[in-house]
Amino acid sequence: MSTILEGTPDKRMALVTGRSYPELATEIADCLGTKVLETAAYDFANGEMYVRYTEPVRGADMFVLQCHSGDINKWIMEQLIMVDALKRASARTITVVAPFMGYSRQDKKHQGREPITARLVYDLFRTAGATRIMTVDLHAAQEQGFFDAPVDHLTAMPVLIDYVRGHLPLENTTIVSPDAGRIKVSEQWAAKLGGLPLAFIHKSRDITRPNHAEAHGIIGEVAGRDCVVVDDMIDTAGTICEAVRTLREGGAKSVTLVATHGLLSGPAVERLRDCGAREIVLMDTVPIPAGKRLPNMTVLSVAPLLAAGIRSVFEEGSVATLLEGLPEDMRPRNIYA
Amino acid sequence: MSTILEGTPDKRMALVTGRSYPELATEIADCLGTKVLETAAYDFANGEMYVRYTEPVRGADMFVLQCHSGDINKWIMEQLIMVDALKRASARTITVVAPFMGYSRQDKKHQGREPITARLVYDLFRTAGATRIMTVDLHAAQEQGFFDAPVDHLTAMPVLIDYVRGHLPLENTTIVSPDAGRIKVSEQWAAKLGGLPLAFIHKSRDITRPNHAEAHGIIGEVAGRDCVVVDDMIDTAGTICEAVRTLREGGAKSVTLVATHGLLSGPAVERLRDCGAREIVLMDTVPIPAGKRLPNMTVLSVAPLLAAGIRSVFEEGSVATLLEGLPEDMRPRNIYA
Amino acid sequence: MSTILEGTPDKRMALVTGRSYPELATEIADCLGTKVLETAAYDFANGEMYVRYTEPVRGADMFVLQCHSGDINKWIMEQLIMVDALKRASARTITVVAPFMGYSRQDKKHQGREPITARLVYDLFRTAGATRIMTVDLHAAQEQGFFDAPVDHLTAMPVLIDYVRGHLPLENTTIVSPDAGRIKVSEQWAAKLGGLPLAFIHKSRDITRPNHAEAHGIIGEVAGRDCVVVDDMIDTAGTICEAVRTLREGGAKSVTLVATHGLLSGPAVERLRDCGAREIVLMDTVPIPAGKRLPNMTVLSVAPLLAAGIRSVFEEGSVATLLEGLPEDMRPRNIYA
Amino acid sequence: MSTILEGTPDKRMALVTGRSYPELATEIADCLGTKVLETAAYDFANGEMYVRYTEPVRGADMFVLQCHSGDINKWIMEQLIMVDALKRASARTITVVAPFMGYSRQDKKHQGREPITARLVYDLFRTAGATRIMTVDLHAAQEQGFFDAPVDHLTAMPVLIDYVRGHLPLENTTIVSPDAGRIKVSEQWAAKLGGLPLAFIHKSRDITRPNHAEAHGIIGEVAGRDCVVVDDMIDTAGTICEAVRTLREGGAKSVTLVATHGLLSGPAVERLRDCGAREIVLMDTVPIPAGKRLPNMTVLSVAPLLAAGIRSVFEEGSVATLLEGLPEDMRPRNIYA
Amino acid sequence: MSTILEGTPDKRMALVTGRSYPELATEIADCLGTKVLETAAYDFANGEMYVRYTEPVRGADMFVLQCHSGDINKWIMEQLIMVDALKRASARTITVVAPFMGYSRQDKKHQGREPITARLVYDLFRTAGATRIMTVDLHAAQEQGFFDAPVDHLTAMPVLIDYVRGHLPLENTTIVSPDAGRIKVSEQWAAKLGGLPLAFIHKSRDITRPNHAEAHGIIGEVAGRDCVVVDDMIDTAGTICEAVRTLREGGAKSVTLVATHGLLSGPAVERLRDCGAREIVLMDTVPIPAGKRLPNMTVLSVAPLLAAGIRSVFEEGSVATLLEGLPEDMRPRNIYA
Amino acid sequence: MSTILEGTPDKRMALVTGRSYPELATEIADCLGTKVLETAAYDFANGEMYVRYTEPVRGADMFVLQCHSGDINKWIMEQLIMVDALKRASARTITVVAPFMGYSRQDKKHQGREPITARLVYDLFRTAGATRIMTVDLHAAQEQGFFDAPVDHLTAMPVLIDYVRGHLPLENTTIVSPDAGRIKVSEQWAAKLGGLPLAFIHKSRDITRPNHAEAHGIIGEVAGRDCVVVDDMIDTAGTICEAVRTLREGGAKSVTLVATHGLLSGPAVERLRDCGAREIVLMDTVPIPAGKRLPNMTVLSVAPLLAAGIRSVFEEGSVATLLEGLPEDMRPRNIYA
Repeated sequence: MSTILEGTPDKRMALVTGRSYPELATEIADCLGTKVLETAAYDFANGEMYVRYTEPVRGADMFVLQCHSGDINKWIMEQLIMVDALKRASARTITVVAPFMGYSRQDKKHQGREPITARLVYDLFRTAGATRIMTVDLHAAQEQGFFDAPVDHLTAMPVLIDYVRGHLPLENTTIVSPDAGRIKVSEQWAAKLGGLPLAFIHKSRDITRPNHAEAHGIIGEVAGRDCVVVDDMIDTAGTICEAVRTLREGGAKSVTLVATHGLLSGPAVERLRDCGAREIVLMDTVPIPAGKRLPNMTVLSVAPLLAAGIRSVFEEGSVATLLEGLPEDMRPRNIYA
Repeated sequence: MSTILEGTPDKRMALVTGRSYPELATEIADCLGTKVLETAAYDFANGEMYVRYTEPVRGADMFVLQCHSGDINKWIMEQLIMVDALKRASARTITVVAPFMGYSRQDKKHQGREPITARLVYDLFRTAGATRIMTVDLHAAQEQGFFDAPVDHLTAMPVLIDYVRGHLPLENTTIVSPDAGRIKVSEQWAAKLGGLPLAFIHKSRDITRPNHAEAHGIIGEVAGRDCVVVDDMIDTAGTICEAVRTLREGGAKSVTLVATHGLLSGPAVERLRDCGAREIVLMDTVPIPAGKRLPNMTVLSVAPLLAAGIRSVFEEGSVATLLEGLPEDMRPRNIYA
Repeated sequence: MSTILEGTPDKRMALVTGRSYPELATEIADCLGTKVLETAAYDFANGEMYVRYTEPVRGADMFVLQCHSGDINKWIMEQLIMVDALKRASARTITVVAPFMGYSRQDKKHQGREPITARLVYDLFRTAGATRIMTVDLHAAQEQGFFDAPVDHLTAMPVLIDYVRGHLPLENTTIVSPDAGRIKVSEQWAAKLGGLPLAFIHKSRDITRPNHAEAHGIIGEVAGRDCVVVDDMIDTAGTICEAVRTLREGGAKSVTLVATHGLLSGPAVERLRDCGAREIVLMDTVPIPAGKRLPNMTVLSVAPLLAAGIRSVFEEGSVATLLEGLPEDMRPRNIYA
Repeated sequence: MSTILEGTPDKRMALVTGRSYPELATEIADCLGTKVLETAAYDFANGEMYVRYTEPVRGADMFVLQCHSGDINKWIMEQLIMVDALKRASARTITVVAPFMGYSRQDKKHQGREPITARLVYDLFRTAGATRIMTVDLHAAQEQGFFDAPVDHLTAMPVLIDYVRGHLPLENTTIVSPDAGRIKVSEQWAAKLGGLPLAFIHKSRDITRPNHAEAHGIIGEVAGRDCVVVDDMIDTAGTICEAVRTLREGGAKSVTLVATHGLLSGPAVERLRDCGAREIVLMDTVPIPAGKRLPNMTVLSVAPLLAAGIRSVFEEGSVATLLEGLPEDMRPRNIYA
Repeated sequence: MSTILEGTPDKRMALVTGRSYPELATEIADCLGTKVLETAAYDFANGEMYVRYTEPVRGADMFVLQCHSGDINKWIMEQLIMVDALKRASARTITVVAPFMGYSRQDKKHQGREPITARLVYDLFRTAGATRIMTVDLHAAQEQGFFDAPVDHLTAMPVLIDYVRGHLPLENTTIVSPDAGRIKVSEQWAAKLGGLPLAFIHKSRDITRPNHAEAHGIIGEVAGRDCVVVDDMIDTAGTICEAVRTLREGGAKSVTLVATHGLLSGPAVERLRDCGAREIVLMDTVPIPAGKRLPNMTVLSVAPLLAAGIRSVFEEGSVATLLEGLPEDMRPRNIYA
Repeated sequence: MSTILEGTPDKRMALVTGRSYPELATEIADCLGTKVLETAAYDFANGEMYVRYTEPVRGADMFVLQCHSGDINKWIMEQLIMVDALKRASARTITVVAPFMGYSRQDKKHQGREPITARLVYDLFRTAGATRIMTVDLHAAQEQGFFDAPVDHLTAMPVLIDYVRGHLPLENTTIVSPDAGRIKVSEQWAAKLGGLPLAFIHKSRDITRPNHAEAHGIIGEVAGRDCVVVDDMIDTAGTICEAVRTLREGGAKSVTLVATHGLLSGPAVERLRDCGAREIVLMDTVPIPAGKRLPNMTVLSVAPLLAAGIRSVFEEGSVATLLEGLPEDMRPRNIYA
């Protein structure tokens, strides 16, 4: 009789989701050929949340999806609690899947005595027990360095570029950055689309005349061109709609807006409706409820991309190749078409 | 010329507050003879929060007040962000002051695959940079062990006992626990009031008859007595109002409810109004807005207690003595009287 | 020729034991169908201990048993050293199995300047390299939150309830808590046995008359009843034997004592012999040497429960189900019958 | 006789330096009115380094200067060793002063299986014992979030802008970004100089014609203008000299190069000599040895800025105000003039 | 009214002691001109220990003395608990003073699957909350590197050398190492005493003849010499008494034994009595009870050395100078003379 | 459709190498029957290094070889960066293979205010992400305790002893330690070779006569003997060549030098050439370039030993057995013969 018992090793994974956007989890599970593992989750009367998994997760590679939108602080906290429960239930690994990473814009101190909330959020997930983060199109790629473990930084750029290539005459297209800080990304778009012309909107403020209005100038040629304004996110849509107006005043033939994250906060929908854009193309990294959809808005599903990322992690393949775009049969459809 | 520069050491403290209950911070500052240090704090359109301190905090002992009530997850997150900003602004020490500690009831696993959210919350504050926690009447005193640094666990019991002693005929008073789990505390009350009689409400469920209603029995003598039901908190008030009814059916002369934390969630106010209690006595460890106040509700300010705790920490005195009650001139008034 | 070598994965576990109660390890190994892995362990002349494993443990899931009784500080230290040796010998996981967790009663500060030794002990095991704790019937369930990794908190309650059900006439049985702090557990017993009546012993001290003796009152009905006093542990047996006397004076027909942990320290055995209890039922979470056994003492083996827990962890099944009781063929026998 | 001994508190600071640029330490000490604390440091024959402080540092606030240039890996390691020695010698706080932070450009993964060396370097300093980092003009401000403690991120921008304001006719000046990624900074320059015009150099690569040369286009107006090309650093000077040529071909009247960090690696000096720039303005955040100085190169001392930062930290004042520029009497001189 | 309260900084220290050798604490306190701060400490019936400080320690620099001898595991655990209580009571710094560091000989793995208990013990103290270790004459100086914070490694060598210089004719003295592993230390003794001759005892085992007895040879000249055998500790005294015999057989005129730590375990006293040594000189880093004292045993007090170390730490002076010996008026006396 | 996806577990390992001695990696890979996994690595113009793996490493057990010699600080940093990249690329385990561990001699403080750089280096590797260290013949075995995870401390002693046994007449051989600190190792050599005679060189410095030259004495018999001087490393060869001279003056018949690590820094080669040793036997734990080889130098490959260690780790066998020597077919050859 031996002192060592031999067991049968196996390798299991499962997907769980918070309550911010369960439909996305279902769609990812469909792509993976599985079902979302059920989680009991509800609010107590005083606002505290409760979660519990209804099946064993011991030894499994767990993926915890939550979209950081809507009641963002609540959903971040729910995801933290979900991670804690997985840690204490002996999951083998815990990957936080946050298609849009909340607070990612607060990634540095502009003045003294500010927080760096983006780093804090990564630390909170680490403390709760996350062993990996998967996210899409961070505001600044440097945030990967905020986590002391692997970060799978996926990009929707190949998906979005594919869409643009199929819907616009490239020979008449100019890529436009809505402000100075995003030109690098626009330059990548222009290069990947075969060397398209580039322009950007320059906000100039004459600080010697305090009450003088801010002027917007276009640097680059846009007259008669089909302009594609690219950004990582559309939040209140102020800057980007100003860009549309400036481009149209500058003689642009049409203006298409493309962004990964459609936060569409506050006045965003109204502004987008009125700005005169030809089309608005977004991924659904956060839910875009019916009330926020416009006739000229295209929302591409991020589920195939996330499913491919999850599969790579689970099968210990390379996430790196995802940067080059999804295989043909994994191309997302317009989920609201 | 020396290689060592000698400086003038000094020792400074300041109080900052989140947005959940700023009035309490003001009152604590009054007790301390100082003012709350101003914090710029607001929400972005997508729900992310921003905070910044308007004065230097470098080298100071900072106390960060937040009441975990209302939009509880948001306020916990705000407090975490405030701590992060203090850490990065070189505060010397950072004490999280949470008069009611959110999620403190989720302090153990009842079943498999549950979180221990109470521990998680302590860990989150530790990660953000908290060096000490100050709180009042934890649901279970064991939670002090959830933090790997000092916890100042204050109790409002002396304040509440003082109040009861001044408002009820002790010779006819019985201390009642609303359920089996809180009898230990009731026993302490009974002892501190000179050895009063004790009773408790016993919930019995006949598990062999599943659809049979739950019965409530009183264990101990209550007929003709002035009953004081003591609990750590009143949340939805279901159990405690059931206790009042049971006691009244059992012939109690009067029933007074006493608790530290008046969460008063959901149907609580309606239940309390209708339950037939003589008086409801609470501390304001969470804000009790006008709409939740009843004519027979007494709310004692927790500010003197917290101010005394903060002063002890700052002056490196002993918090331990606070357990014996506040000095006469620091007794709280009914803040809504 | 590839740059990657493929290996054959396997999964192994083994059980090792400290010197406090090796017989229990042997019994657990029997339940698991394995043998205890041999450990060389001895004391140096100055009291320092030495341990070494005689077989490789690299890559194995290791379970390290130690009972925290007798020379408790020595055995805790031995278990820490055993964990350190496993960590440095590359065990894959290290589960500390402490059927009775030493120092678990020191789980909070009652006064200033006390330690929280229960938390400290968890931290020491974490530091030594433990990745999981398995224990039985903690003094307070909150202690699960003292460890920043999974805790398998098993309960002997189903085993003990089974025994009581088979040995007492339930229709005449009352469950009694020996003091106010354990009523919650008694309530669970009463419920699981089909809604039995409940009582508890109330210690009242008249603090206005300092030299006046402490009185013990029974709250609830016990006259003519077969009383079962339930507690988590019997240490010096002072409180519980006082309870027996009080119940007998109150007219109880018989009194049975049931507890998980039979520490039986100091005067315990003498007290138990003289207190008039019908039977004393214990688990052997600590060794109960011949000299401490009484004729009316029943000791049930905890080995089947621990073996089931270990098997669940190793096979990555669910420990949660153990809370409902062991399967028929794993019921423990009276090990001293 | 008391059990507590009262001591006399005091507060001391000292500056130590590695061997990469001791002259800068001397100059900082001069600004502070102190002397550099002597360190014994030398190389063993096999390349290992040794350091030892010749005076006690116990209880002192220590500032450890090292310039990450030249034999950069060696100097980073020396600084780590210096920090370790301070930690073990009981310094109260240890501030790493790295005017140019090595590896700061490797701040994200561009492809899979790359390191994030910038984060690693912060982690190494944290591990060695650093409690704070002070640096100047990071490549990306997000790096502040790489350190889990305060980072004093100073900027030389006010100093450099001051210099430009005094040496160029602003009414004819255009601010130019040498590539798309730095336009944000250029925009800040333009704004602070009163709303100057802006331009940037756009690198376009026609990916459909692989062997076709890369073209450089100017976006914005530069003909007849005095152009100021601003960047955070000049390393091999390839991009920036290409920018000068492009601007001159585009009709610029003059081109001035301004950068904080003058690494001047490899072919940099030759390129700068030949590129046709009017003037090159740098800070001495790394040493610029005689052999690398050109007649039209102005090097401003970074010592006053660092001294002001150190003084603020030691006196627990606000570093934040340094962002607005140094007081008149702390303006740096051209150290090689 | 300001938002910042200024306090009066002060600096306090106190000494507390475990129960293994309280007399040493008293003597150290005498040297420091203070009294030991009172600690309530006792054992529970099941062997668990309890400690509590009877005065506030908030903000103080605390020194926690314990001698790791006798019931060594118990006293280590008591010291850990004392440190935990200080951490939770907000001591500013916590220095573990262990004149003899338990388990320091288990500082490496000789075979696979052994612990490195010496490192473990340092880790345990770190986890409990120790911020510094003070100890005397470690078995291997490398152990300083086992702690991730300052270690004050004092040496009794100057005290012991002083004693030898005053009691033996140096011109006829030879320093002897009892085995090959301690020659380095003997060489230091020989050098500090003006270049005395050196010898060592060489154990040779002929491994080709398994049952052949081990031989002891002297390497170096000892005939007619006054030999001083120096070691770090005398535990069971086997090796050192064998050395005395070998030296006497080799013609030594006299043999004096000198060691810092007089553990005197098991057969040590009997062996020392019978070995024929002229004198045995020890420090009292562990208590040497009356029953273990021999007529030719001299025990020098370690209190002045530890007091000097504590004073240096508290006053933020340099411990380094202690390595050169104590000032004249701090020379220890033979405490049993 | 299940909520749990089952995967196929597998187990993979790969070897990567830094640029200090890639030939050794190739030889190890040969022994393992695999190839070195390709790494892109180069220096930027300012000295910063870049590394990237060209194949996926996700889930693999990675071994990272680097020899700490030549530009030692650079190569340590490169190895740290390689570990960071593996951590972020999701390697399952990361073993740092450092045949000679840099800075291992700086393993304690000799004076105040020194670093313990050996511990620092272990900490740096831990921080970067190393989960295990594999090394050969540490300067002090205590260093194993510097790492808070497994250290595989291999020894070349069996290989070297094998060589000596085959090349010298043992009956006339004496083992010699070049100084007092290494006699323990010499004693092991003597024992393993069947109980050979022992001697050591004693450096005596008459400290009463400051300008008097240092004398070297031989303790033990060497006249007419074939002496084998054993040491862990030959760095500048000062001490060991002095030993050769002293032995030859003492009448030794021949002197053979044996050491594991041939650093051969500075004047080493010249000294070795001139010292009169019969043969110098080394392992290639660091590269020994052609320019440093002498006709009487034998360099044995360390690759078989490291390959055996790596294989044991990967196959979760026992490294312990390697201490007894390699199997016959894994004996290393003289790599420069």
